[in-house]
Amino acid sequence: MSWLSISPRSHFSLANLPFGIISTQANVSRRPGVAIGDYVLDLSVFASQGGFAGAPEQVRSQLAVFEETTLNSFAALGRPVHRLVRDYLQEVLRASSRYADVLEKNVGLREAALLQRCEVKNHVPLQIGDYTDFFAGKNHAYSTGVLFRGPQNALQPNYMHLPVGYHGRASSVVVSGTPIHRPWGQILRDPMASPKVPVLVPAEKLDLELEMAAFVCRGNELGCPVAVDRAEELIFGYVLMNDWSARDVQLWEYVPLGPFTAKNFGTSISPWVVLADALHDLRAPGIANETPLLPYLQEKGRGLLDIELEVELITAKGNRHIICKTNSTNLLWSWPQMIAHHTITGCNMQTGDLLGSGTISGTEPTARGCLLEQTQGGKTAIKLEDGEERIFLKDGDSIVIRGCAGKEGALVGFGEVSGMVMPALDLF
Amino acid sequence: MSWLSISPRSHFSLANLPFGIISTQANVSRRPGVAIGDYVLDLSVFASQGGFAGAPEQVRSQLAVFEETTLNSFAALGRPVHRLVRDYLQEVLRASSRYADVLEKNVGLREAALLQRCEVKNHVPLQIGDYTDFFAGKNHAYSTGVLFRGPQNALQPNYMHLPVGYHGRASSVVVSGTPIHRPWGQILRDPMASPKVPVLVPAEKLDLELEMAAFVCRGNELGCPVAVDRAEELIFGYVLMNDWSARDVQLWEYVPLGPFTAKNFGTSISPWVVLADALHDLRAPGIANETPLLPYLQEKGRGLLDIELEVELITAKGNRHIICKTNSTNLLWSWPQMIAHHTITGCNMQTGDLLGSGTISGTEPTARGCLLEQTQGGKTAIKLEDGEERIFLKDGDSIVIRGCAGKEGALVGFGEVSGMVMPALDLF
Repeated sequence: MSWLSISPRSHFSLANLPFGIISTQANVSRRPGVAIGDYVLDLSVFASQGGFAGAPEQVRSQLAVFEETTLNSFAALGRPVHRLVRDYLQEVLRASSRYADVLEKNVGLREAALLQRCEVKNHVPLQIGDYTDFFAGKNHAYSTGVLFRGPQNALQPNYMHLPVGYHGRASSVVVSGTPIHRPWGQILRDPMASPKVPVLVPAEKLDLELEMAAFVCRGNELGCPVAVDRAEELIFGYVLMNDWSARDVQLWEYVPLGPFTAKNFGTSISPWVVLADALHDLRAPGIANETPLLPYLQEKGRGLLDIELEVELITAKGNRHIICKTNSTNLLWSWPQMIAHHTITGCNMQTGDLLGSGTISGTEPTARGCLLEQTQGGKTAIKLEDGEERIFLKDGDSIVIRGCAGKEGALVGFGEVSGMVMPALDLF
Repeated sequence: MSWLSISPRSHFSLANLPFGIISTQANVSRRPGVAIGDYVLDLSVFASQGGFAGAPEQVRSQLAVFEETTLNSFAALGRPVHRLVRDYLQEVLRASSRYADVLEKNVGLREAALLQRCEVKNHVPLQIGDYTDFFAGKNHAYSTGVLFRGPQNALQPNYMHLPVGYHGRASSVVVSGTPIHRPWGQILRDPMASPKVPVLVPAEKLDLELEMAAFVCRGNELGCPVAVDRAEELIFGYVLMNDWSARDVQLWEYVPLGPFTAKNFGTSISPWVVLADALHDLRAPGIANETPLLPYLQEKGRGLLDIELEVELITAKGNRHIICKTNSTNLLWSWPQMIAHHTITGCNMQTGDLLGSGTISGTEPTARGCLLEQTQGGKTAIKLEDGEERIFLKDGDSIVIRGCAGKEGALVGFGEVSGMVMPALDLF
């Protein structure tokens, strides 16, 4: 229990303490903060005004990381230091703590460092190096495979043997709340036409993708793969992700080298990085893989992160509709397996790299993490209130993804990642 | 003519003046430099000791960029400033110049700022944001398409309509001279076997790829495509690139999302960025595209860069063999077209982004830019001296790519990008 009043249903319980980059109207400088209930602890102020005086030396010697405009330097300190910082802040925020003098009974520091969360603006929390998107959601891979190739060949032969992934675009990763303009794109309206003559139009099949993503805190040297059982030490923490996708652009461009302009116009992430430590014990079995794996992908069974996920569609008319409820255990591969495979040829990870899970879908129709699946390739509209329906996203639609683990009173949640679809801009 | 003695066959004539990041034994700090003949002008020393005193105000007000450890800040000043700097340095280095007092007759500054190129160590010249690799070498796309799908379906339907490309891995881009360890990778030895059981082995089909690459100096806002006729202003300059590829890994992993671990273990670039201005007039017609293009890809015909390229294979025994001679006009798409397409859905370019052309191959057997093509998919060995032959690269092989444009006495060259294949490291 904290001395702060925190709703038992808050995503940001004392068991969580996620990190982000914030600014306020009163101080527009970007700086690190920690979410707690309806508050944010401004770490820049907290650190500079002696808040960490009781923390271990490994923390006190590194306070400059809380003066930076991204979390990269904090992340690069590594997980043992993240643990020390989080443990210390939990003590400072806990009721009847030996550190009550630090903040609870220090009105001056409380007034300076404890902000209302609703008054805080969030920014992309780390400067992203490389962004990689995996395809680890087996139900999604299967459902979309059925649409394109039928049930017999739904999964490619490599799918059960390795975490399929591809390099994505880091520059267009944006923080929750950033509007997404409908992209123009080159599409082929009639795939059966001959000759095939594409057109340039605002994308007509704009989709969302429900994903989780991991930020890397410390990397590996080029040429040196990361062993699967050591890979968790590379993970700083997790965010929710909406990997907006233009399906019509994707279908025309993606052979043979994969998605490109269909994905690089915007990828939204939730602002608060939930530390790997906060989720450490919140696990459940994932999708069983009966395929014998090569040793570099065999991990000591620890289970996948157990995060309840939902996607809400809010139309311009204000109709709200939960279009998907699922769980992050619907992945065939764990994050350590993804990292072990990503680095097996020697690829170097670096602080700030972002790894996406791929679309997460359950097996039920109401558990599918994108509209392509929900509408069976655009064939069946989703019925909303008031006679509205959707096949793909319309201008003015907002998508809100929420995710949360743990039990009431000690929830470890992500808040949300939201974004509104804006009309296409005039070209040039 | 320069007052420095420069061989007429030097890649680094007064007409060139490429920029790089250097260090020396005497001063291990990374700093910008300009290559001229067998020399390098240390811009950090030159700037701090008054070398730019006669330069325009737009240059004199920005000298801090020459104190940085990458060229990003210099690049971000934009092409008009690059032109002023290069023009001024050409004057300073030209014989009978009005700026003779700056360096030619200033023994102190010459001794401090003019280094022997052979004593200089080069580094990756810019901090790379995102790295994108295109597939614009039509002869390469066709030849490899024939290998995989036969001549009737060699090029995919989208190929003539848009510059096919994919996002690559920025973290593993290394500078010329960096050894490349043979990667371990998951491969399927027998694609016809059933069931398909992959193995983890050091890649057996290690290949080079001859490419050109462009660095971005200034980007665009997310959501705002770049018009093709304005795209050249985004290009800082060019380098040679060897996009090392593990073909056996690639074949197994690349469906459906494209190459991943087959490419992310190392990509080598030449160290000197040849400014876009230096190559501005060195053009020739590219491969004609009879397909009607959408307006956003139609540019006022200016031709492609006309750069003679060659690839040398040097074996561990010391046998040297030029395995490819070709020209950068063997591209279907120009750099402005690649940028226009890359940004058409709104993707934002940023300073330091790197764009690769894809493998450049001519139509002749001796003009093919990778071993996959040279050996027709691994079927025909290349005969070297002394009875040596190659299908794919062996440990101890070095690949040296050279490229040069212009005429003797005023060559605009890249020097070379080299790399030696080292044995696979022990795993974990």
